[in-house]
Formats: sequence, C-alpha cells, structure tokens
Amino acid sequence: MIKVGIIGSTGYAGQELVRLLTGHKDAEIKWFGSRSYINKNFSDIYQNYFQIVNDKCLDDNIDLLADEVDVIFTATPQGFCSSLLNEAILSKAKVIDLSADFRMKDVSIYEKWYELKHNNPQFLATAVYGLSEVNRSVIRNSNLIANPGCYPTCTILSIYPLLKEGLIDKNSIIIDAKSGMSGAGRSAKTDNLFCEVNENIKAYGVTSHRHTPEIEEQLSYSAGSEVLINFTPHLIPMNRGILTTSYATLKKEFSYEEIKSAYDKYYAAEKFIRVLNKDVFPQTKWVEGSNFIDLNFKIDARTNRIVIMGAIDNLIKGAAGQAVQNMNIMFNIDEATGLLQVPMFP
Amino acid sequence: MIKVGIIGSTGYAGQELVRLLTGHKDAEIKWFGSRSYINKNFSDIYQNYFQIVNDKCLDDNIDLLADEVDVIFTATPQGFCSSLLNEAILSKAKVIDLSADFRMKDVSIYEKWYELKHNNPQFLATAVYGLSEVNRSVIRNSNLIANPGCYPTCTILSIYPLLKEGLIDKNSIIIDAKSGMSGAGRSAKTDNLFCEVNENIKAYGVTSHRHTPEIEEQLSYSAGSEVLINFTPHLIPMNRGILTTSYATLKKEFSYEEIKSAYDKYYAAEKFIRVLNKDVFPQTKWVEGSNFIDLNFKIDARTNRIVIMGAIDNLIKGAAGQAVQNMNIMFNIDEATGLLQVPMFP
Amino acid sequence: MIKVGIIGSTGYAGQELVRLLTGHKDAEIKWFGSRSYINKNFSDIYQNYFQIVNDKCLDDNIDLLADEVDVIFTATPQGFCSSLLNEAILSKAKVIDLSADFRMKDVSIYEKWYELKHNNPQFLATAVYGLSEVNRSVIRNSNLIANPGCYPTCTILSIYPLLKEGLIDKNSIIIDAKSGMSGAGRSAKTDNLFCEVNENIKAYGVTSHRHTPEIEEQLSYSAGSEVLINFTPHLIPMNRGILTTSYATLKKEFSYEEIKSAYDKYYAAEKFIRVLNKDVFPQTKWVEGSNFIDLNFKIDARTNRIVIMGAIDNLIKGAAGQAVQNMNIMFNIDEATGLLQVPMFP
Amino acid sequence: MIKVGIIGSTGYAGQELVRLLTGHKDAEIKWFGSRSYINKNFSDIYQNYFQIVNDKCLDDNIDLLADEVDVIFTATPQGFCSSLLNEAILSKAKVIDLSADFRMKDVSIYEKWYELKHNNPQFLATAVYGLSEVNRSVIRNSNLIANPGCYPTCTILSIYPLLKEGLIDKNSIIIDAKSGMSGAGRSAKTDNLFCEVNENIKAYGVTSHRHTPEIEEQLSYSAGSEVLINFTPHLIPMNRGILTTSYATLKKEFSYEEIKSAYDKYYAAEKFIRVLNKDVFPQTKWVEGSNFIDLNFKIDARTNRIVIMGAIDNLIKGAAGQAVQNMNIMFNIDEATGLLQVPMFP
Repeated sequence: MIKVGIIGSTGYAGQELVRLLTGHKDAEIKWFGSRSYINKNFSDIYQNYFQIVNDKCLDDNIDLLADEVDVIFTATPQGFCSSLLNEAILSKAKVIDLSADFRMKDVSIYEKWYELKHNNPQFLATAVYGLSEVNRSVIRNSNLIANPGCYPTCTILSIYPLLKEGLIDKNSIIIDAKSGMSGAGRSAKTDNLFCEVNENIKAYGVTSHRHTPEIEEQLSYSAGSEVLINFTPHLIPMNRGILTTSYATLKKEFSYEEIKSAYDKYYAAEKFIRVLNKDVFPQTKWVEGSNFIDLNFKIDARTNRIVIMGAIDNLIKGAAGQAVQNMNIMFNIDEATGLLQVPMFP
Repeated sequence: MIKVGIIGSTGYAGQELVRLLTGHKDAEIKWFGSRSYINKNFSDIYQNYFQIVNDKCLDDNIDLLADEVDVIFTATPQGFCSSLLNEAILSKAKVIDLSADFRMKDVSIYEKWYELKHNNPQFLATAVYGLSEVNRSVIRNSNLIANPGCYPTCTILSIYPLLKEGLIDKNSIIIDAKSGMSGAGRSAKTDNLFCEVNENIKAYGVTSHRHTPEIEEQLSYSAGSEVLINFTPHLIPMNRGILTTSYATLKKEFSYEEIKSAYDKYYAAEKFIRVLNKDVFPQTKWVEGSNFIDLNFKIDARTNRIVIMGAIDNLIKGAAGQAVQNMNIMFNIDEATGLLQVPMFP
Repeated sequence: MIKVGIIGSTGYAGQELVRLLTGHKDAEIKWFGSRSYINKNFSDIYQNYFQIVNDKCLDDNIDLLADEVDVIFTATPQGFCSSLLNEAILSKAKVIDLSADFRMKDVSIYEKWYELKHNNPQFLATAVYGLSEVNRSVIRNSNLIANPGCYPTCTILSIYPLLKEGLIDKNSIIIDAKSGMSGAGRSAKTDNLFCEVNENIKAYGVTSHRHTPEIEEQLSYSAGSEVLINFTPHLIPMNRGILTTSYATLKKEFSYEEIKSAYDKYYAAEKFIRVLNKDVFPQTKWVEGSNFIDLNFKIDARTNRIVIMGAIDNLIKGAAGQAVQNMNIMFNIDEATGLLQVPMFP
Repeated sequence: MIKVGIIGSTGYAGQELVRLLTGHKDAEIKWFGSRSYINKNFSDIYQNYFQIVNDKCLDDNIDLLADEVDVIFTATPQGFCSSLLNEAILSKAKVIDLSADFRMKDVSIYEKWYELKHNNPQFLATAVYGLSEVNRSVIRNSNLIANPGCYPTCTILSIYPLLKEGLIDKNSIIIDAKSGMSGAGRSAKTDNLFCEVNENIKAYGVTSHRHTPEIEEQLSYSAGSEVLINFTPHLIPMNRGILTTSYATLKKEFSYEEIKSAYDKYYAAEKFIRVLNKDVFPQTKWVEGSNFIDLNFKIDARTNRIVIMGAIDNLIKGAAGQAVQNMNIMFNIDEATGLLQVPMFP
C-alpha cells in the first residue's frame, strides 16, 4: 500500500485526487490537508464523500507529513510548495506538485509570468516535468514531479509528434483553448458566479496567460529549438473539460496518412491517448470523468495548415489523473491503476 | 463470470449499463443489442467507448440471446419485453426489464396508463418489483425483475419508512419531482433540443404521468391499504439527477429523533441509502455518477407536515445501477460489486 | 419626465431597473446609487450599458436624492430602506422599496423571520404592498410601496382567485417553488459559483424561507382569515425565471370551466397576467425578459386536488418590472409604459 | 407603415424577426409564413407570443405575398429563395434573404460549398451583401439583400479595418469561432439534444464550413486581393451568442493607438459597433438581446500577431437584427428604429 498525503485536498483538483485514490487498490490516503478546514470532516466540505471518507481535514504540516507517507501531492496555490520544500522532505517522501512551481527550468521566466519570487530554485534542475507519456522514463526515477498544467497537457500532447517529426513550421503555432469552469477553482469570485458564466463565453488572459511559457518550453524541447506561440484561453459554461484547437503551417504538402503515422509512432501504444478515426473530432463530453486525451487533426490543403484538436477532462488528465498516473510510474506499478474509468455520458 | 446480454444498449440507460458492467469484475457483456444500429460499432454510437468496447451492435434476437447468456437486460420501450417474453427464455436466462411492462400487478392499470395492450400478463404474478433494498429477498429468488422507474425509486425510498411505521396520513402525500433531461431519452424531439430546455423549467404530465400508479402501488404495499398521491414531474436544464420533494401530514407531533429512528430502522445498514445529517439537504450533484440515494426530511411544526427530499442519479440508482444491483442479488455476489463509484464533483 | 433615483443600482435587480427605465419614454434616471462603486462608471460594472449609460455611480445619500427626483427605488438589502426613511423624504419623493422592509404589517413577524430590528415600524401602516393587479387602487394613492418578493408575486397571483372565490381548503396549500440563480444576487459566495450550481438542483430554506410569512399574509387577506402554508424553494441551474407549483384541496368537485371562470373574473382584463389555454402549462422561458406572469391549473379528480403553475421572470415581474409598473400607476401614466417587451426565445 | 411578410417565420431567426418587428413603430407584419404550420396559431408554436400575436401561419406563396407587402424576409433553408424569386416579385416588393443564396457573387463557389444547384444566378449581380455598416449606401438603393451569415458578420466586422488599412498580412488570418446552439436551428436532431450539447464543446465543419467562402469573399474586397483563411467553428452549451477570436500577423510593429485609430476611422460613428476600452474583452452575455457587436483587440509583441475578438447575439446582429437594420436603410428611416434594446444581463 502506497501511503499518500494530500496538501490542498479541498480544492477542486485536491478532492478529485481523493476521488481517484479512494478507488485505487494500491494506495491509501493518510492525510487530508486543508488549511481552510482544519478539524472539519472532509465529507462536510464535499458531501459526495458522506459515509465514504470519514477523515477530518488536517493542517499543512509538510515536515510531519513526510514522516508518515510515501508520497505527497501538493494541490496548492503557486508559491506554496516551493516555499516549504527542502532536502529532508525529499529524502523521506516523493513529491508530486500540481502547482506551477517546478514546471519551468528558468526561474526568471517563472518569476516574470507568475509575479512571485521563487524560494527554492535549486530544486528546479532535478524536478521532472510530469507529462507522463513523454517523460515516463525520467518520471520513474524522480522524487519531485512538476505535474503539468491543464492547458499545457492538452496542447503539448496535441502538437508533440508534429514537432518531433519536423512536420510543421515551429513559428506558426496558434492555440485557441476552451475550458470549463472547474479550472478556475473554488474560491468565491463574482466573475465565477453562475449568473456571470452561464449563457456566456469570453476570452481571458489574452497574450498573457501563465501557461504560455510552460507550453513554449515543452514545445521547444520537442522542436529542438525555441518555439513561441500564441495562446488564447476561453471560459465555457460547463464544469469540466478542455478543448484545444491548434493551428500550424505544414512544412510541405502532407497526406492524411503521413500525419497519422507521426501520431501513431508516438501514441499507438499509449493507453490514455486516443487518436480518433479520420474525420471524427474530439468532444470534451466523450472524455469526461476519465484520464483519456482524445486527439485528431484535419489538413486544410487550401491554406496548407493543419488544425489539431485535443480534449481532456481538465481535473483528471489535466490535473489529478495525470498526477496519479505519475505516482503509478514512480512506484513501478501498472500505470493505469485506479485510472480505468470509462468516460461518463451523458 | 456472469454472461450478460443487453437489448437496447444504445439508449441512455442501456449505454449506462454498458459503462457499469465494463467495470464489473464478475460480469462480461456478450451481446450489445440495438435494432437501430445493427452491425455498427458500439463505440461509433457512443464515442466514450472508443478503444474500450470493440463490439458491434447486434439485432434483438432474444431467443438466441437466451441460449448464450445468463442474464438479459431489456432497456427498451414499453411493450417490447412483454411482447417477446416466453417460458423458454425464462427457463434459460434471468431477465431484468428496465421498462414498465412488469412493474404493476394489475394489467388493467398498465393498459390504461400506458395505452398499450399487455401481451403476456401471465408473467405479472411472478415478476418481482426490483426495488433492491425493499424486496431483496424475493429478488434473490426471482428470474424476472421489473426494474423500478427513476421517479418511483426516488419517491418510494423517500416515503417508505414513514408509511411502514404509520407516521403520516396516507391520503396527504404530494410529490413534486424534478428531473434532468437524460430521463427523456435520446430520441430526436424538438421539445428536447438544447435551446428549448436550457434556461427553462416546466412541469409536464401533470396529474397524468405514468409513474403515478407505479408509485401508488408500492406505497400501498407499504401502508397496507390503498394510497393515492399527487405526482408532478418537472424538467430541469441538467443532464443527470432527480430530486423529489415530498409532502405529507404527520399523524401527530413528532420529534426529529422519532422520525429519524424510523429511517434508521430500515436504512441504517443500507450501503446505497444515505440519510444525511440533520438540516443537510440532498443535492443531485452529490450523488451524480453513483448508485447512492441521498435522503433527508424536515418537520414543519407550524403546519404539522413533513417535507422529505431524495436525490438520485436517474441513470444509475434510477435505472442501470439498480439493475446491476439486482443482478448482483440474483447471482448471490456482493451486492455492491461494480457499484462503488464515488459521486463525481463538480 | 419622471425623475428617478435608484439606490442599489448595481445589484441584479437594480441594474434591471436601469434597463427597463432606459427604455421608458416618460422616465429618466438621475441617480445611479451604489455604495460599492462610488465614482466608477456604471458601464464599467455592467458592460452591457457601454455607450448607453454614461453616468457614474453615486453614494446612497437618500436625503439629497429626495430633493432631486420624483421617485426613489431602493434595491437594497433588508434593513437599509427602513433605517433611512423619514417623513421629510416621503414628503418630497415617492419611494418604491424592493426589499422586504415594509411588506408585512406585523413588525414582530418581520423581526422574527428576518432576524433584524425594524427601525421605522411607524411607516408600516401606510406602506402599500405593491402587487400591482391586486392593489392597484391603493398603490395609485400611496407614496411608499413595498414591492413584493419574487416568490410571493408568482405564488399569490397563482392562488388569489381560488381563495377569493372560496374554491379551495385554505389549510391545504403547499407551494413548491423553483428559481433561477439571479434571485440569489451578485455577491461572491462559494455556493453560487458556476461549478456548484450547474448540473445540480437542491431545496433550501426548507420550512424557514423568509418569503413564507409574506405569502401567508397576502393569502390571508384573500381568504379573509389566517392561512398557513408550506413553502419550499429550490435552486435551478438557469439565470432567470421562477416556476411555482402549488397544490390545494378543492372544497368540492369543480369542473375546468368553473375554475377557469374564477381566474377570468379577476384576470381577464389584466395585460400582464396570461392564463394559458387548457392543458398548456407555463414554462419560464416563455416569459423571460418580460413582465408577464403565465398561469394555468389542472384538476386531479382522483385526489380532488388542484395543481396551479405560475411562471415569471424573477427580475422583471418578480422585481424591477413590477416596480416600474407600480411607478406607472403612482404617476397615473399608462401602466404598461416601458414594459411591453415580448419575451425572448430561445 | 412598412408592410412586412416573413417566409419561414417559425424558425429561430424567423421568430426573432417577429419579435423585433412587433416592437418596431414603423412596421407591421402582414404575413406569418410557415409551411410546417399552415393555419396554426403562431402563438401556439411560440408561446411567448400568447396574447401578443394573434395571427395564423400562412403558406409560403411568395407571388401573392409580393402583392400585399412592401418587403419580404425569407428566413428559409438554402435554395428556397433563389428557386422562387423572379423579376415580377422584385418589381413589387423588396426582398431581404436571410439564407446564403445571394451572398456570393460566384455561383460556382455557392454550388460547390452548398452542394446545391442555384436556380437564379442572374440575380447575383444585383443582390447586395447586407453588411449594414460596410455597404450602407448600396443597401439603400437595392431591392434584393443577401443578409450576411452569423459567423461572417462577426468575423468580417472584426477584421475589416485592419485589411482596409493594410495593417495585417492577408495570408495569415485564422478565425476560431464559438457559437451558441440557436445557430443550429430548431429541427429535431440527436446531435442537438440537450444531453448531447450540455457540458460539452466540440469543433465542427473543420476546414469545410460553408461560411468560409462568404468570409473570404468579403475580406478579399476589403484587402483588394484574394484572401484565404482558416475558419473553425465550435458549438458552445448556450442558447445565444457568437464569439470569434481572430489571429493575424501584423505587417510591422504597431502600437495600440495605431491599431485603435484604424478601428475608430471606420467605426467611431457606428451606433451598433462598440470597440471596448483597452484590455476589456468582449463577452457574448454583454450583447445578448441586442443588435450590438462588441469588439476589441490585443497585440502580442512577442509573436507580432494581433488577436481580435468580436461578440454578437447570433439571432440579432447575426440574423434578424441586421435584417431589420437593412430594412430601415432601404426604407430611409432611422437605421436604429426597433433595434435599441439594451443587452439583457444576467
């Protein structure tokens, strides 16, 4: 049994970790951390767990926690994990951080886009970017995982094979992303009230969203040289789901089969990446409640561009699910353990 | 391994059976019946099953099917199961019918409310009403289950202890029910288009909904004499979930504790029935994706009435989940097998 | 031109007043009161008014305001209007209060249900309950209107003819109400976040909602003696709209025509009350964006009860629209001025 | 009084024409055409018009109609208007066609993208593309208007000043569009059912949507030479609203002010085009129920691209509203007559 502690268990991503780990045959949650609800019943905060989880919320004592568990998930605001981490903790427990603290290697980029001082940049070198399918082998041997953001997961997996195989102009990439509201978290803000979101759509963070440099860094690794992108996220009146629509110029005319074989080369054996049949496009509803990413592409011969679409459940493949997948890899158990939920429809 | 056949596997309830049984360790689906999609890939109809279910849809040949499987689920329109059933089928396989064909003992009531002729009333006597928690022992020994309707499941379980214990005036019961749209099925009707449903609420079937006599018959058994009710269903702009708000006059002044102990007497040991803490009221979201029914009540001393609220996922506890629960009972395996999903939030 | 001041113009009901009065040919808004946004552009708070309303928000100086306008709307929290009102104000301007401060004649009931001390109970005697169609003649001569609550408007108009004509047992009334989220206001609360409301339905304020005594008082006037009711409101994942489903026992067997003639007696000449054709039931979408209330009823001969359904746009007929209707009455102009919007569909 | 006939009055766009014209002081609807509902009360099909519109639906006799009215709106499927139109009709009445039949000058493009034979290509030369703000002077003198599509209206107005002023690379334009469901019409299709759309987002018509050549033709006029674009529409779980997010490469570095002055040059005097304040981005909710288009842009200095966002109510500025605006221009009355509704929020 893997003993698990969660810091930030009462955010949307944190409680999704609870849900997935409650059904995980090889893991057991020992610590439901939540600064906001210390000593309250977890199931009073999230009533879906009534008679299922009987634990109380505990304080965020990461040092104590490191003595008691094998792996710590931090589903906390930016700056939290990096401010508390130290060698002693990492020597005792593995850490999977769902925040952005260890996602970018260049601390100046983090500090610029997040407008925060980074307290522990010395761990950046060893932290592994936890995009499971891409970095599986280094994840396995790491004890500090920077779990990817929701938009980056969907975007990078959409484009990765095209850059690796050199099929697209790396300076032509434009990403138009659409997200359900659970990505905005559970804090009480007027902008996130039902009446402000329902029957509405808007772009936000235009040219300035903080997932931009995270995507660019990973795409740059794929391309082998620096990639700059345009990234525009939008808020959609639904709870879960991200759809990214990515555009790029093809380096020359390619057939459907040529592009498809690039995706197959990297993803054919991947359980959680589903490249759909030709002309069947991803819909977020078809992956809701699951760890899948659904992908497909369409070539526009008129403009010689390719349109790539990807769909994930932002709380699962985009957060808690991928975190559990990384845990499975790190503990050398079947990577799909606890993640075999069929998407729920309708 | 229990071999399972599903007739009507491409309706919303049918495909939910597929989802639950795909995750059921002791069952295996051998027949994906769907008259509308014969020879099509099941996963082309429901893309969530892409790379999960690789079977094709088959015709509704119930006689052939009975030779091949241990249990047949019929998730079909009213009149279908009753028109095809015969002794030979029942001698070879157990049948769990999700339609209304065998729910009411009095064939004239069925024929009046459903405006259909019943083709096999001789099976009504032996068919068992599959309200799992109430009829468990007879379900176990039955080979023909009439799986309860979604509204009746939520309503009857809400009121059952009060009538059994004689706490309410049986002539005072009024049920105001609210349902998500998946209860209306997948057929293409203008009334069920997104634009007609979204940002809208309406009552329908006022005084004439066909679940009325089903509820009345079961409540009459609980009360020991005939019960007539008012039942008004409403359509809510959401996919899943039923909330029933029931009103009844208390026979005398009762304390919270007295009423609570009636619920505890019948439900304290029930895994899937959760009577919430005092003054915590059910919300459909807290049971979505699970087989739970959440219940609670509130006494109004001013009018001496009791208000009872129940919440279920209409496709699970109100249809496919209870059907699987009944299968587990009939095959003498752990009743919760395949049904331990934690409700999904948000 | 009627000069208008609005205190609380940046709440949902307040800004709806702005919308209706912006299109009102005989009225002009002189004061956009909003304590929270003093000196900010009104159209920065509500961007729909960009290039339409160019005014800044002002402080809530009701004494100064009374000098400058003919009528003051207070769309403010309970306790606000009653704490500031005085004879001087009322001698200079008419006041239409959208809060509950002057709705109930008995100050002790107000103080008990609202858990507030009432600062100016001396005005309760002269304040007029602004249910336009019922109290038109007294509204005309009043200078202080207690504008009805949203649920009470829909409920009372649903039942009024039945009690006036003595057709129902006054002790049998049960009201099950469903409301969109705009009724909950614009303040930032976790419970009202999109993700908590969407795909969810719940009852709240069960047996204790503060509109209960308001409804009871008005129904008691209609009945000529005290009426106690059960009132259960529910929250629905939509922005606008209230549907009330009311139940009562008929005093004897009545035909459809007998009941219909009672509604016709009171409502046939009413522009904003639409009793629908037989067996056509109200839907909130059919009144959205308008000042209409749609009504209909269904007799259940089996239980001798009547089910009455009413639908309004809670922000219009349930708040700002009825307030404007009352203003029109008070200033002796055509009652429908500024209120002739056709409901918007879909 | 302008006498109006509507063919196709019971589609979503048709009934929105009814709503706008019902409130238009200089117009009167004389003919509610609807092949599907001949002799039925219009208000039985759209209950919002109960007691407002008392007319019955009539057959689509366009020749007879031309004798009786001054202007005919055809809100009908592609191919309908072009198949019936003749010189006699156009000599008697003006025609505003909301379908695509006369939008593109090159009949071969129409026939290729719409897969229909065009029956009256001889009218293409004189038909005027009714983008009100761009083609006002020719609209005024036309008797056959091709009313623009919803996506094209939002897209072209977003980009028009940039191409006219030569600020962007005309080969770099990518348009990512998001639409509410009313754009899909009222016909009963499984894909448009509430449960299939709610909690879901998908792209459709990728690289093949029929509004592509319409947008390209108009942008080519703006640019002075051929423009090819990528256009990807998405369906959003809401009733009304289109948001387009457009991307283009700037020809050189431009400041915010330089770009803004291009928009001001064309739009500063336009009542229905609102270029929002700097860094305030359009949201569909802020224009819902109105004829406005809200626009804004953001320069990304890192990639030297510009992102332009536009929001409209697809049924108003994207269909019926612009059609009425065109009628007002053609009949030389105030262009805003009947179109001054303030957007409705929330």
